Amino acid sequence: MKKNLVIQSDFGLADGAVSAMYGVALSVDEDLNIYDLTHEIPQYDIWEASYRLIQTVDYWPAGTVFVSVVDPGVGSDRRSVVAKTVNGQYVVTPDNGTLTHLKRMLGIEGVRIIDETINRLPNSGESYTFHGRDVYVYTAARLAAGIIDFAGVGPEAETDTIVELPVIEATKDDNCVSGTIDVLDVRFGSLWTNIPRTLFMELGVKHGGRVEITIENAKRVVYKNILTYTRSFADVNVGEPLVYVNSLDCMAVAINQGSFSKAYSVGTGTEWKISIRKAPKIIYE
Amino acid sequence: MKKNLVIQSDFGLADGAVSAMYGVALSVDEDLNIYDLTHEIPQYDIWEASYRLIQTVDYWPAGTVFVSVVDPGVGSDRRSVVAKTVNGQYVVTPDNGTLTHLKRMLGIEGVRIIDETINRLPNSGESYTFHGRDVYVYTAARLAAGIIDFAGVGPEAETDTIVELPVIEATKDDNCVSGTIDVLDVRFGSLWTNIPRTLFMELGVKHGGRVEITIENAKRVVYKNILTYTRSFADVNVGEPLVYVNSLDCMAVAINQGSFSKAYSVGTGTEWKISIRKAPKIIYE
Amino acid sequence: MKKNLVIQSDFGLADGAVSAMYGVALSVDEDLNIYDLTHEIPQYDIWEASYRLIQTVDYWPAGTVFVSVVDPGVGSDRRSVVAKTVNGQYVVTPDNGTLTHLKRMLGIEGVRIIDETINRLPNSGESYTFHGRDVYVYTAARLAAGIIDFAGVGPEAETDTIVELPVIEATKDDNCVSGTIDVLDVRFGSLWTNIPRTLFMELGVKHGGRVEITIENAKRVVYKNILTYTRSFADVNVGEPLVYVNSLDCMAVAINQGSFSKAYSVGTGTEWKISIRKAPKIIYE
Repeated sequence: MKKNLVIQSDFGLADGAVSAMYGVALSVDEDLNIYDLTHEIPQYDIWEASYRLIQTVDYWPAGTVFVSVVDPGVGSDRRSVVAKTVNGQYVVTPDNGTLTHLKRMLGIEGVRIIDETINRLPNSGESYTFHGRDVYVYTAARLAAGIIDFAGVGPEAETDTIVELPVIEATKDDNCVSGTIDVLDVRFGSLWTNIPRTLFMELGVKHGGRVEITIENAKRVVYKNILTYTRSFADVNVGEPLVYVNSLDCMAVAINQGSFSKAYSVGTGTEWKISIRKAPKIIYE
Repeated sequence: MKKNLVIQSDFGLADGAVSAMYGVALSVDEDLNIYDLTHEIPQYDIWEASYRLIQTVDYWPAGTVFVSVVDPGVGSDRRSVVAKTVNGQYVVTPDNGTLTHLKRMLGIEGVRIIDETINRLPNSGESYTFHGRDVYVYTAARLAAGIIDFAGVGPEAETDTIVELPVIEATKDDNCVSGTIDVLDVRFGSLWTNIPRTLFMELGVKHGGRVEITIENAKRVVYKNILTYTRSFADVNVGEPLVYVNSLDCMAVAINQGSFSKAYSVGTGTEWKISIRKAPKIIYE
Repeated sequence: MKKNLVIQSDFGLADGAVSAMYGVALSVDEDLNIYDLTHEIPQYDIWEASYRLIQTVDYWPAGTVFVSVVDPGVGSDRRSVVAKTVNGQYVVTPDNGTLTHLKRMLGIEGVRIIDETINRLPNSGESYTFHGRDVYVYTAARLAAGIIDFAGVGPEAETDTIVELPVIEATKDDNCVSGTIDVLDVRFGSLWTNIPRTLFMELGVKHGGRVEITIENAKRVVYKNILTYTRSFADVNVGEPLVYVNSLDCMAVAINQGSFSKAYSVGTGTEWKISIRKAPKIIYE
């Protein structure tokens, strides 16, 4: 089996931080295969770090070791952990909410707390601000390389002690499903909601059917309009809005070749509510 | 032979889309070597996707499989194809003009239409918006891994059925060569034209010789000045404009350590014409 | 031993330049492992190229070959060289100051001048503007692959002939250490100084102790305030400034979860002086 290591951070790629992490990992074991998830998580944005993990982890082979370093509490007493998913991937991360979506949506079967007396880069000196290099990637590389096994990370912790960010569940009420806007498909300005396709399906709307979308921010209605539910962007005109199923099997809203989020200044987070109501069919005579 | 896979898209690297594609490819064959061409193609810009392929494909070994996903028509009836270049590289892409420059400037010896009943990620669910992950990179990984051969992609198509974007040829007229500004060397603001060095050479201008550059946009003259034709940037002063041969063996215009495109608000596309005229030699007495 | 090649440039990743370099390297030897240091060095910024090398090179295994292409003098008579560090890494670069920090802070044990009659991509044509592809990465790939050894690069040069950028040394005077602001931790807005932790330690300030920071630009005082010297960001409040030891074991100044450089418009370079003075202990009664 190949030894795959996948790194995520909020460091950006403009300086040498990520490359130093690569060097540390390859110094542990030169046979590691190292990849990037993304390094453009907005600084300190633990929610987005958590979301990008659920977007990708399960597409990777079992045994893959992920490192996620979005760590506003570096140097505090927040725990450093390794989580094992139900499908056998590992995530090395500060225990600060980064595991929220993986725990809820995929499943975590075990957690170990990193023992830094063993798993810390030797001679990493008097710097206490780069645990990504000195602790996280070093531990991840040792785990991926088989130098330590999961138990070798450090003492076990109960999975229900993992720090979780507050999440609001999508709900259904008669002809309407409601949820929150979790994240943007940044480059295309699409809104990704927490409403699963399976819940939406209970409304009985078919491809080509019409739905009323309402978007609210702190009780203010930001957008209310009737859209078509389509299989894909190309089913509507260029510039036309649409409702579709995104690549995480949840409901999403977009403008074909435009940016919905920019057009209506829509943001993300639990203050951004969205509801999808089955709209009456229009019959033109 | 190594199994090289090179990915291009307009997805950016800020979210998990590209990493999910990597995971799918490695799940097909963990021995693949995966690289990026670029993921910063401007959204929906098929022309630039086509240009970045001709800029790079032939520098890679024969057998390398490229994936290019700039796909404004995702979900429409546009074809999904694999093209084989005359030098044995493969390109997996929607057939929407992305192959324009490769077909004209390098040569394509065969095209196959992807049979999605075979070549689609199993259980890729009810999402129809991420063919990059579910169809293109999955097919490319199977081809690079040798799980399918070129015929295994699907039915053959005639190469002259490939969708091509309109291209204007460079021309020569007495002491003047003319063409269009195809693309920018983005970070340095240089203008890259479609005028081949070999055509320019027919003017008989030597290194150090002087040429008159005229740039027009929709018939309006945007720039007209006399420049030196040099081997390289360092042959002129810092801040001085120059004409040179770019890394694609075509003529280019720049300002040494400045940005020509910003200085004169010059853009790209077939509406941006450029002509290079042999200028009389100046003799200072 | 694995054959590692690490590439740095000011090319950005938006076009095909970096990918063409990858292709050239893999065409030399398909078993190379190629990585990026960064491609976002500000254009022509040799100082930052030099700094990013000292930030990373020594975290990589001995034998690793680095390529750095920040080359405002491409096409001039600046030398093209390969330097060997005291720890056995190699750096292929124009000799324009890029080796400044490695020479001073790590140590260079030998330099060879690239003989382009041997070490230049065959048929690289009439382009003289992309030495990164045609000379530097080609030479680096041959060296990493073992096709040439260090002597095979070309004739030896004295290490004291390497071009060095002017550097100002940090100094200590009674209760005050002084230096310059070398570089920013770009994404987090922290100031990285050239004052080594070991020099600062001579002031006898302990974690939790207070220091007076003065920042001057061309003799104008830009910032003067009393801060806490802490182990890490989490030791102060969110929004509070701090002094800490950075990941290069030098002194740094930041705002916890804010941007110090933006807050006070602080830049980098030898015109930006910083001094750290031991502040009197305050006793609250």
